[in-house]
Amino acid sequence: MHWGYMSKALGGLFISVSMTMIFPIIAGLWYSDDSFGPLLKSMATGLTGGSILFAAGRKAQVVALGHREGMAIVTLGWIGAGILGALPFYFSRTLGSFVDCFFESVSGFTTTGASVLTDIESVAPGILFWRSLTHWLGGMGIIVFSLAILPFLGAGGMQLYKAEVPSPVPDKLRPRIRDTALLLWKVYLLFTVLETVLLMFGGMNLFDALCHTFGTLATGGFSTKNASIAHFRSAYVDAVIIFFMFVAGVNFSLHYQLLIGKPGRMFRDPEFRFFSALVLSFVVFTTLAVHGNVYSNLTEALRYSLFQVISIITTTGYATADYEAWPFLPQAILFISMFIGACAGSTGGGMKCMRVMLLLKHAYRELFRLIHPHGVSRIKLQGQQVSQDVLNSVLGFFVLYMLLYCLGVLLVAATGVDILTSFASVAATIGNIGPGLGTVGPTENYFHMPYFAKGVLTFCMILGRLEIFTVIVLFVPEFWRK
Amino acid sequence: MHWGYMSKALGGLFISVSMTMIFPIIAGLWYSDDSFGPLLKSMATGLTGGSILFAAGRKAQVVALGHREGMAIVTLGWIGAGILGALPFYFSRTLGSFVDCFFESVSGFTTTGASVLTDIESVAPGILFWRSLTHWLGGMGIIVFSLAILPFLGAGGMQLYKAEVPSPVPDKLRPRIRDTALLLWKVYLLFTVLETVLLMFGGMNLFDALCHTFGTLATGGFSTKNASIAHFRSAYVDAVIIFFMFVAGVNFSLHYQLLIGKPGRMFRDPEFRFFSALVLSFVVFTTLAVHGNVYSNLTEALRYSLFQVISIITTTGYATADYEAWPFLPQAILFISMFIGACAGSTGGGMKCMRVMLLLKHAYRELFRLIHPHGVSRIKLQGQQVSQDVLNSVLGFFVLYMLLYCLGVLLVAATGVDILTSFASVAATIGNIGPGLGTVGPTENYFHMPYFAKGVLTFCMILGRLEIFTVIVLFVPEFWRK
Repeated sequence: MHWGYMSKALGGLFISVSMTMIFPIIAGLWYSDDSFGPLLKSMATGLTGGSILFAAGRKAQVVALGHREGMAIVTLGWIGAGILGALPFYFSRTLGSFVDCFFESVSGFTTTGASVLTDIESVAPGILFWRSLTHWLGGMGIIVFSLAILPFLGAGGMQLYKAEVPSPVPDKLRPRIRDTALLLWKVYLLFTVLETVLLMFGGMNLFDALCHTFGTLATGGFSTKNASIAHFRSAYVDAVIIFFMFVAGVNFSLHYQLLIGKPGRMFRDPEFRFFSALVLSFVVFTTLAVHGNVYSNLTEALRYSLFQVISIITTTGYATADYEAWPFLPQAILFISMFIGACAGSTGGGMKCMRVMLLLKHAYRELFRLIHPHGVSRIKLQGQQVSQDVLNSVLGFFVLYMLLYCLGVLLVAATGVDILTSFASVAATIGNIGPGLGTVGPTENYFHMPYFAKGVLTFCMILGRLEIFTVIVLFVPEFWRK
Repeated sequence: MHWGYMSKALGGLFISVSMTMIFPIIAGLWYSDDSFGPLLKSMATGLTGGSILFAAGRKAQVVALGHREGMAIVTLGWIGAGILGALPFYFSRTLGSFVDCFFESVSGFTTTGASVLTDIESVAPGILFWRSLTHWLGGMGIIVFSLAILPFLGAGGMQLYKAEVPSPVPDKLRPRIRDTALLLWKVYLLFTVLETVLLMFGGMNLFDALCHTFGTLATGGFSTKNASIAHFRSAYVDAVIIFFMFVAGVNFSLHYQLLIGKPGRMFRDPEFRFFSALVLSFVVFTTLAVHGNVYSNLTEALRYSLFQVISIITTTGYATADYEAWPFLPQAILFISMFIGACAGSTGGGMKCMRVMLLLKHAYRELFRLIHPHGVSRIKLQGQQVSQDVLNSVLGFFVLYMLLYCLGVLLVAATGVDILTSFASVAATIGNIGPGLGTVGPTENYFHMPYFAKGVLTFCMILGRLEIFTVIVLFVPEFWRK
């Protein structure tokens, strides 16, 4: 372990995150709320802590950054950002217990959007802006993590995306991460400006438009309103957010290709097509189930189905309707969607469509082998053969995801949370969705959960966000030995 | 496809199954109920149908029985037996609709134990005896299927068990099936006699003792009493049934080894150890959760926890307590147990411990690879390396199991069944358990489910019982082409 370099990298990260607190400070000053003190205190704490770490490792020179350092930095970075992000909630007494503050902050940085705030609209604008900004920062982080870092770590099948984004220095990890990050962030920034402007056209003020844009593009789900997007009662706002939730659920390297004039890359991409087909069929079945039942009007049925299906499968978690009052088929569709998730390389969570596709292809190959025991069958994706290594990673990811899901459910149920809520809350946090079923549905929040359950769910958010392996590997003692 | 041979084999099977109706006829005559007519009519129908099929294929000579014929015979055999077994319920008007009769019969032959009978004790003894006998016959079938047929078909990783039971003719499929079957059936028969005698010592009459023995050894779960085993209010009966449920959940080839004086084979068997460890830890946590809460007495807490945990993980489904009134941790444990199931080569269902072990080993190997990207790590079971082929089969099985589980849940939820019951009923039928959660808990039954849902669940029972692949492969058009 290059401890020195890790300290330097983490210190740098915490300094950067602290610096971004300038934006909520401006928001707070604009609205003359009382968030200035708490935000400044948090920023100062973050800058001090970050500087100490940075200084401790300042002499570290790294020739080649190893796999292990990469995984440790990412996991510790996200946890550290979670602690840092919890400070404004804690100092401003928005939430009483630090467990709650940490839950809310991790929920932000992991772009989950599960909240323990019971009355969002009573919170100071400066604090709410910070809360939404954690989504946006987390989304930036995850794009780089999944498209620039993970492919090189070879975890969970993401090695498939090794050559997705062109880079002038193809084989060096550090310059590649920097270049890839810059390209993708430009796309992310462009979408941010676009959605903000479009939401303002719909009558939102800059503050709400920015906060909801952060929540949409990061597939986060934090709103500034108690009723989430339903608050705005606007088909136009719904449409803009539906569109950008879908966009945020698509691999950002495909957006990059689209923007440099190669739309074919997107429309021929098998994962994009699979994701679109899933969304389409889920929307159709949901619309049919709620039409005549919840909504007498077909257009209304379609509008609310589109929103809720896309919100859940992209793992955003915004709501315009209480799907727990819907028939059971859409509820089952939404629950299963929580496991599938969006595309790899997007800001969405869940297992990702690419993995689900490879799992299905693997199962089909096994069926084929039963019919042709001596036949040869290879798994291909867009004409390219998928190696057994990638397949093993994806299958291992699936097993580990389900195993940790079960363990999470057992731990949450042990605190006395009812069975449906236990199953749904773990699915909604490990998949980074936010709202679940039972007592954590779209009109409820996580405040009433026991502290131990909140701790488990916070861990689940980090696990899911960092693609399981990156976090779990830190618990293997061998990881820390040389 | 050797249609002639298939017809002959299925005809022979249906004739044999029909012949066994002589036992419920005797039971009916003994109790002078009105089941004689319906049973005789069913037997005659079965014998006629079986004879026609047998005659149609009588000239068929098969040199080598193919994979495809094997799978088709097994699936069609179980479906045919299901139809045949439904006749006594239908002719005796025990159940009004044939969908219900077929559900009950398939639940018997697949050793599931899910029932649509609302008042079991009002049913004629002859019919009840037939109902329990379908379990016992299904159990016999499944032992042979999993230890003699599946290893040769190479489906779902069962090829691991190719050499488990010694046979004088190791490589010929037909004589091997016959020899293996005979050896294992002797073990099954011995346990049947033993449990029946032990239950009679506890005060049960021969009828109840036999019926509950059939339900136990087949990990079925049909009782002759409305309150299931709770009816007998006897710690002795509970203990006998706990013991034999556990026995029935263990690979029968290990029992055979034990009986021929090689107990080491059992106690060194990794799957047996894994299964025992799981049972032990689940019992400990369940006991701790119900003690002081539901049961003030620790012995009572242990007694009911032991029974319910072993009943569900072996996929039997007998009940001495209403676990839906228990805290949520044991409920979550029981729900997850439904997916794990018992050992391969037992009469139990679920995914089987052997597969769960290999899945975990695979996931661990993927973690190991992240730490040592260039290291070599092989998956071993009892010192033997497990081939990538077996691993691929097991992983494919897991994917297909979860996929079909989700599809089943969507179909059941679409009929208006509530979300918890939808998830639990599909888990309890595809895993061949019987009771679930929600409105199909241990004190309820499946009668109130919509017909379409009953159809889906009946299909799930067959799917789960025949290890998924064997059934699904029949839906691939290529399977039927030459």
